[in-house]
Amino acid sequence: MAAKEKDLVYTVKRLEEFMTSVFVALGLPKGDAQTCATRMVEADLRGVDTHGIFRLPHYCKRIQGGAINLHPNVRPVRENAVTALVDGDNGMGHVIMTAAANLAIRKASESGLAWVGAFNTNHAGAAAVYTTMALAHDMIGLYMTVANGNHMPPWGGVEIMLGTNPISFTIPAGEEPPIALDIATTVSSYGKIKLAAQKGEPIPVGWMVDRKGQPLTEPRRASEGFLLPIGGYKGYGLNVVIGMLAGVLNGALFGKSVIDFTKDMSSPQNGGHMIFAMRVDNFQPIDTFKREMDRVIREIRNSQRMEGVDRIWLPGEMEYYKIQERRKNGIPIAPAVVQGLRELATELKLPDRLE
Amino acid sequence: MAAKEKDLVYTVKRLEEFMTSVFVALGLPKGDAQTCATRMVEADLRGVDTHGIFRLPHYCKRIQGGAINLHPNVRPVRENAVTALVDGDNGMGHVIMTAAANLAIRKASESGLAWVGAFNTNHAGAAAVYTTMALAHDMIGLYMTVANGNHMPPWGGVEIMLGTNPISFTIPAGEEPPIALDIATTVSSYGKIKLAAQKGEPIPVGWMVDRKGQPLTEPRRASEGFLLPIGGYKGYGLNVVIGMLAGVLNGALFGKSVIDFTKDMSSPQNGGHMIFAMRVDNFQPIDTFKREMDRVIREIRNSQRMEGVDRIWLPGEMEYYKIQERRKNGIPIAPAVVQGLRELATELKLPDRLE
Repeated sequence: MAAKEKDLVYTVKRLEEFMTSVFVALGLPKGDAQTCATRMVEADLRGVDTHGIFRLPHYCKRIQGGAINLHPNVRPVRENAVTALVDGDNGMGHVIMTAAANLAIRKASESGLAWVGAFNTNHAGAAAVYTTMALAHDMIGLYMTVANGNHMPPWGGVEIMLGTNPISFTIPAGEEPPIALDIATTVSSYGKIKLAAQKGEPIPVGWMVDRKGQPLTEPRRASEGFLLPIGGYKGYGLNVVIGMLAGVLNGALFGKSVIDFTKDMSSPQNGGHMIFAMRVDNFQPIDTFKREMDRVIREIRNSQRMEGVDRIWLPGEMEYYKIQERRKNGIPIAPAVVQGLRELATELKLPDRLE
Repeated sequence: MAAKEKDLVYTVKRLEEFMTSVFVALGLPKGDAQTCATRMVEADLRGVDTHGIFRLPHYCKRIQGGAINLHPNVRPVRENAVTALVDGDNGMGHVIMTAAANLAIRKASESGLAWVGAFNTNHAGAAAVYTTMALAHDMIGLYMTVANGNHMPPWGGVEIMLGTNPISFTIPAGEEPPIALDIATTVSSYGKIKLAAQKGEPIPVGWMVDRKGQPLTEPRRASEGFLLPIGGYKGYGLNVVIGMLAGVLNGALFGKSVIDFTKDMSSPQNGGHMIFAMRVDNFQPIDTFKREMDRVIREIRNSQRMEGVDRIWLPGEMEYYKIQERRKNGIPIAPAVVQGLRELATELKLPDRLE
């Protein structure tokens, strides 16, 4: 590999405007284009670089391939005071899940809590981007989704039919950064394996196994094996539950029928997501709760560290500081990614080529 | 060790009656005694032998030590149509969480879903015993709890302040056994480590580390190390979230303040649990849903197996068949456990000594 080139750095505003103009050029209504851009930049701000602007060229290919409905009628098809089933009408996932999250928050404001499921959706980016929406309303957030491609067999199997099915929880705090957990139920993402293969580095025991269940540590052999779930059969079970609650419950795809959106640029996915929001003050006065959260967070952070460990982190804390830092100093993007974005801009005849 | 003695086998009815009589002898009202006995036998039926009658002598010690309120006023102290905060008034955990589960199911019947939290509780046995209560009502169940003792430091730390904090999900199916996941967020329970030490066997890499983060495989050295969370920092994050949602949100203890109930026989614990129930038919007609669940379950079970694997299991399936088998053939109990129960019966002057 060539020596690492320096990242290019852009402001949030610049990237949002660039992405909005790309989506508009591809035919998305302005408001929806802005929603997608905002959610994607939020992933970049969190440091989840694999779920932000990095994805833009791929999303564009699926839009150009006819896989996405640019003018979806996103609407609840079943609804009561505390639940809704949203038909995403095959729109952009970011548009659908922003609407679903807002609906859950509105219902929870009125009734205490709400669970909103969605089907006919597409990739919506980083899970925590949606659960963190609940925090400003002093609510707890929960999000689960069927991943958009399979990389794992059932526990004891060799047939790949499960994805990384992620889950995210957010919990408000007071002066401390809020808790924001966002985890795949596999030990590693497939992206990390690809990166190790590019670098020519081995992967740790416990990330993958081969078809006989033996550790696979040579990432170039990744296609001969599978990702492992967190905690073995435990993570497998959690993965299946997430698939059923985000997929089957919503009438969305889960299992062998899931379409790998990295390979298919023209088929609707019938993706499934769920989002849950709940007011803290159902249970505790909000100030009491936040004070106790701060106390517990500090107790954990200030506890005795293992030799060589500089700091104990709470879930979402690194991302919280990353947001501050990137809002101030800008978002770094790898040169190869910028190159792809410039080609996209040229192809779409956009004035801004991120120069 | 001596050669393994044969287990003794008892019917469900016999064990329920025995446990009820023990609790009544210790001063519990008959109804509450029966509730505890039923929930405990349900754990034994599921094959979760560590959470059933095995616990009886220990529960009795805490009752005799004055740690438990035998006549609690279990009641919601905050409540709306879809949430409740239940004060368990330091009663037996099984009594409190049975009431909480029934309350969640009643509210969910009326309003679609409900989240019930509880504080001032005690150990309530196996999580799945409560989530499976939702299944008969065609509901999804979710349960989280702060474990009753700490065995794990935060990720990167060495100070033990987190428990095995379990989570359970149940989802109805049609002809297939329902999904019932019940997992601790640590790779291994502390009980399994003790068992390996007794047998003189090493434990696998990945179960424990020492204070420098190196694998600890000699279970006799367990006190020099800690349990590991599932998926490393991911399981640590999930563990903390569970502690906050089952503990902090309910005003119950979480973190350093948690009382190790295996060592303390006289202090109230202020334990925290939560249970959530949700009607499937908020989202799908129940028959459609069950048919699709059956299809997905069969797709997973019938997928290609790894060499040497006889069967692919769904979460809760083994336990489902164990229940059938033990209802028919009785519940086997280890001789050492029976011995302890007989001593208890003698001490309490009970007519039934499980002979």
